[in-house]
Amino acid sequence: MSTVNTVTEQLTAAGQAIEHDSFAIIDAEAGRHAYSAEQWPIVRRMIHANADFEFNGLTDFHPGAVRAGVAAMLRGGTPVVADVEMICSGLSRPRLAHFGMSTHQFISDADVIAQAQAQNTTRAVQAMRKAHRLGLLQGAVVGIGNAPTALIELVRLIMEDGVRPALVVGMPVGFVSAAESKDLMAQIADVPWIVIRGRKGGSTLVVAALPAADDDPGHVADLRHQVFRLCGPHDPHRHPHHQGRAHAVLHAPPHEFHQRGGLLAD
Amino acid sequence: MSTVNTVTEQLTAAGQAIEHDSFAIIDAEAGRHAYSAEQWPIVRRMIHANADFEFNGLTDFHPGAVRAGVAAMLRGGTPVVADVEMICSGLSRPRLAHFGMSTHQFISDADVIAQAQAQNTTRAVQAMRKAHRLGLLQGAVVGIGNAPTALIELVRLIMEDGVRPALVVGMPVGFVSAAESKDLMAQIADVPWIVIRGRKGGSTLVVAALPAADDDPGHVADLRHQVFRLCGPHDPHRHPHHQGRAHAVLHAPPHEFHQRGGLLAD
Repeated sequence: MSTVNTVTEQLTAAGQAIEHDSFAIIDAEAGRHAYSAEQWPIVRRMIHANADFEFNGLTDFHPGAVRAGVAAMLRGGTPVVADVEMICSGLSRPRLAHFGMSTHQFISDADVIAQAQAQNTTRAVQAMRKAHRLGLLQGAVVGIGNAPTALIELVRLIMEDGVRPALVVGMPVGFVSAAESKDLMAQIADVPWIVIRGRKGGSTLVVAALPAADDDPGHVADLRHQVFRLCGPHDPHRHPHHQGRAHAVLHAPPHEFHQRGGLLAD
Repeated sequence: MSTVNTVTEQLTAAGQAIEHDSFAIIDAEAGRHAYSAEQWPIVRRMIHANADFEFNGLTDFHPGAVRAGVAAMLRGGTPVVADVEMICSGLSRPRLAHFGMSTHQFISDADVIAQAQAQNTTRAVQAMRKAHRLGLLQGAVVGIGNAPTALIELVRLIMEDGVRPALVVGMPVGFVSAAESKDLMAQIADVPWIVIRGRKGGSTLVVAALPAADDDPGHVADLRHQVFRLCGPHDPHRHPHHQGRAHAVLHAPPHEFHQRGGLLAD
């Protein structure tokens, strides 16, 4: 199996044409929506990922979510912590590398499995605790596409242990506690989040919603500008790496952002 | 990132309880369906994967699909060829190893990208052709969750080049040619298939539908019996490896099949 994943990049003209037409169809059929200009491209990618227009409505954003996600990405070196490996393999590796982001998931680790069995809880809970023990959650982008118990544990870590991820993309799927876990997350004011209300969710939706998937050239350019103002030279101690990173991104060759991408391979 | 993936196995009592309750809810809410006893567990897993009851109806089976998939799995050494890496990482590695199955995807290979650009086609088309050149499609289980062009090319290889996969799980998602690609596949009589009609699809659904995900103890026991009769001692030259494999599987300790699994991690 190849270790290179450029699956989220449209590298061919044929692939770009298909994606262009797909988004045009979505725009034509989606009808009215209540999302901001910075939120809609994310919802549109989610509709694209599952061919399901219900995400126009079910998707809900903390007001600071999109900027927080892009800021985390531009900061450089931000970890992405996921509940399952499918999310990690769905993200664009060249894009992650460009922003110095690393991916982490612990669901299949022997110590996680052993602790879950010993404590009569789930692997997903123990995997979140392991990420916390390793110091990975602080300032991280956390993507949960599978296990409601992972999101519930993350909410507990935020409320009780003061954990502060940069952004939580909370989209567990299921019939037991999934809707409730997302309603819990959406009550948090101190940590930005994007959630899908109700039962729906999944790895492909998390991949579509994660800021590393963001690829609309105009959108990224706008956000680069906003983020540079937002967390730029005025607050250098908070984001020690961001200045050089933001500078590098602002001065990156435009073609790096003009290559259309998205979840779908061509 | 861990190289071990047991994400599709419910290893804890807590995870098993959640999955048990989830399937009970699906059965209670799904209402009537027109699927056979061997097809319904697959549709149920797909509903479980995306929390979408539309798959009760949209999912369509070649009449020989389920048996063909299980036979391919029991035969031993059967390759799984996927269009994207997310499918490969979503499958249970212990389960694949148990049946000697290998996974393959070529979407990000340099030669695939170069040929797609040179011929003004998509990477997905070239990736299918590469799988064919390597002799991997013959007798394989092919899972397509992303690119309609991959499925269209596979149909062409079946019709024009005589390629005969054991089973095609054709579930590309999208707004351009996705529905048409699946209607094309569903016209094929000589190769068994499972498709989702219309636009919906995705990697998580392919993972849920692939026979390696099959885990209902009674269902697997029934199918082991059927398949043993079907492709057992009476036709040894057709499946040279199956006898020892089928024997081993038939005499495997029951707990190997009693561990509930499925797409979702606990």
